[in-house]
Amino acid sequence: MATIKLLNDSELTPEAQEIFDDIRTTRQTDYINNFWRMLANDPSTLKRTWFSLKEIMGPSGALDPKIKEMIYIAVSSAHNCPYCIHSHTASARDKGMTEMEYHELIAIIGMAAETNRLATAFGVPIDERYKL
Amino acid sequence: MATIKLLNDSELTPEAQEIFDDIRTTRQTDYINNFWRMLANDPSTLKRTWFSLKEIMGPSGALDPKIKEMIYIAVSSAHNCPYCIHSHTASARDKGMTEMEYHELIAIIGMAAETNRLATAFGVPIDERYKL
Amino acid sequence: MATIKLLNDSELTPEAQEIFDDIRTTRQTDYINNFWRMLANDPSTLKRTWFSLKEIMGPSGALDPKIKEMIYIAVSSAHNCPYCIHSHTASARDKGMTEMEYHELIAIIGMAAETNRLATAFGVPIDERYKL
Amino acid sequence: MATIKLLNDSELTPEAQEIFDDIRTTRQTDYINNFWRMLANDPSTLKRTWFSLKEIMGPSGALDPKIKEMIYIAVSSAHNCPYCIHSHTASARDKGMTEMEYHELIAIIGMAAETNRLATAFGVPIDERYKL
Amino acid sequence: MATIKLLNDSELTPEAQEIFDDIRTTRQTDYINNFWRMLANDPSTLKRTWFSLKEIMGPSGALDPKIKEMIYIAVSSAHNCPYCIHSHTASARDKGMTEMEYHELIAIIGMAAETNRLATAFGVPIDERYKL
Amino acid sequence: MATIKLLNDSELTPEAQEIFDDIRTTRQTDYINNFWRMLANDPSTLKRTWFSLKEIMGPSGALDPKIKEMIYIAVSSAHNCPYCIHSHTASARDKGMTEMEYHELIAIIGMAAETNRLATAFGVPIDERYKL
Repeated sequence: MATIKLLNDSELTPEAQEIFDDIRTTRQTDYINNFWRMLANDPSTLKRTWFSLKEIMGPSGALDPKIKEMIYIAVSSAHNCPYCIHSHTASARDKGMTEMEYHELIAIIGMAAETNRLATAFGVPIDERYKL
Repeated sequence: MATIKLLNDSELTPEAQEIFDDIRTTRQTDYINNFWRMLANDPSTLKRTWFSLKEIMGPSGALDPKIKEMIYIAVSSAHNCPYCIHSHTASARDKGMTEMEYHELIAIIGMAAETNRLATAFGVPIDERYKL
Repeated sequence: MATIKLLNDSELTPEAQEIFDDIRTTRQTDYINNFWRMLANDPSTLKRTWFSLKEIMGPSGALDPKIKEMIYIAVSSAHNCPYCIHSHTASARDKGMTEMEYHELIAIIGMAAETNRLATAFGVPIDERYKL
Repeated sequence: MATIKLLNDSELTPEAQEIFDDIRTTRQTDYINNFWRMLANDPSTLKRTWFSLKEIMGPSGALDPKIKEMIYIAVSSAHNCPYCIHSHTASARDKGMTEMEYHELIAIIGMAAETNRLATAFGVPIDERYKL
Repeated sequence: MATIKLLNDSELTPEAQEIFDDIRTTRQTDYINNFWRMLANDPSTLKRTWFSLKEIMGPSGALDPKIKEMIYIAVSSAHNCPYCIHSHTASARDKGMTEMEYHELIAIIGMAAETNRLATAFGVPIDERYKL
Repeated sequence: MATIKLLNDSELTPEAQEIFDDIRTTRQTDYINNFWRMLANDPSTLKRTWFSLKEIMGPSGALDPKIKEMIYIAVSSAHNCPYCIHSHTASARDKGMTEMEYHELIAIIGMAAETNRLATAFGVPIDERYKL
């Protein structure tokens, strides 16, 4: 698979190199995963995506970073993105997700999928009390 | 909308009535929302769905019920189920989700949607280290 | 809603008029539903879509037309198309779908949605025996 | 791929072992496919999922088990779950689906996908007669 | 519908007000559509989303802004977002999309949906020549 | 993967052979990609799909064939069809898509995915001015 090349470090533009440096510093690891190596083909998307992700998924805010990763897994599973599922499951575990939490997450994903389709198939009208 | 009737309390089979009783007891409210009033047309699906939901979304387990509802919103948004989004957003707020948490949740849903489609469009290969 | 006008009979091009005539003859009813009245804005898509639908959903073939409509409901529920769900649920009932069959269909749709997302979230590898 | 281990028979908890025994008895085969070997990591989801599937997809009810499998393929195709498509296509063939029936099923899946998106893109309003 | 309030101009934070000013200047209209009035509840998401959209959908770049809007309609139709379909169809027409171009766009959306599901249902393996 | 055999030229029915001949003539290449080799198992779907695709994606019409392919990539990415993404990305490049155009396309796909889910999660009501 792949519709574009994975870039190695020697193939980066200076702008992409700067982003890779920031990823390495932020994550405190030398490893850059394939997602960023592909986005590096388009430095402006690389930059925009990285800074958005860093802002949204970072340690500041009301939600625990581990919980944020679990929400990411939920969306990625519903959207059917194997790459995203694998990378964010790894991140969630790195940030402390236990196997029990993981199993509860997966059970909710499955349950929500089921009731989503039941509600849709029946065309259930939204209760007045749920509307703002 | 709706492909089947919403049943009121006087139209229930005894089996459906039992489930409605359990929903009322479990949730400590007399209100039964439209989703269950539609499922009541098929008591066996009503029963199976309610007991699964009660087990998965209940207070026992490793994850906070509020977090569980937030994961439900994430899946329902990715699956595009307005009924489910509205009912679970109401539930999450009932269980204590703050507006700041809500906004972080929505931001993650949007961000994940974006990177899901970027990874898919490029066909990014899964890094070896993410595979078990 | 609607991004384009519903055309009434007096607004049709001759090519669209011919297709409407064929829909009326084939279905043995004067009623033309909104889907075709919108497609009539683009006669070539109207024509192509109608002849494909007529060929695929017609009475010839190995599958019962009622079963074909039920499969259509399944796909439309998974794709989240309220228009399609409502129109094909009406068609399936017209073609003899019983309420018991309908409830089994809905239960399968919900169950499949659940296991689809469980398999995806875990990245279950396909068994060798399922591959051709 | 895979975010969790496939368990072999010697790694099961007693509760998971019981479910595997029931799968073998019900299906009259010793073979347990990968889906269940992954779910076995979480015996409560394994149990709940298996009993729901057994109830919904079993031989009792109004719909032929072969037709049930074909509906499962339809949902799984629309949800884009390669694992589910492959396993349920195998099941449908085991239960007697002919190649002609299979081709009609696939044609309906494709056709429904097309009209689903046409109706959505145009925002076709639901005809009054389709509403309950 | 709606899970949160649409904010009118008097309810904005100063940060949100600044973004609304930039939207008005950029688009040369006083009208602010509902999407931004909802996002205004969370100024940081409002800001990030607006600047990303402005960069990606603006007049600079290789693709014509009209074509960009048409691609947006395509994605929004496949994702089933009626709000997005309606707002971007209006934008595409504002930017010069003709009805003939619109009909070709819709036909492609429908056709792609069909072949997407056919390829998925059959599990068509990717040709070697399509892989980088 | 694959739920059905890829047919080589010696295994075709005469009707399928005719379609393959037309594909070769139309595309001016001897190469037939896997999608058609699978559809060849069902000559009537092969024929219908090929003639629809030829009509919709061909050089006549208001939109440039390159732009048509880019719209196809957008839908296929949102529907998550790796086969379709790879084959239409190859086609778009064959028809002259530059890498800069490609990157803008991918950025729009990602951006649309994000705002689609934001609008859905908030249940943003459609502005009156966007309704016909």
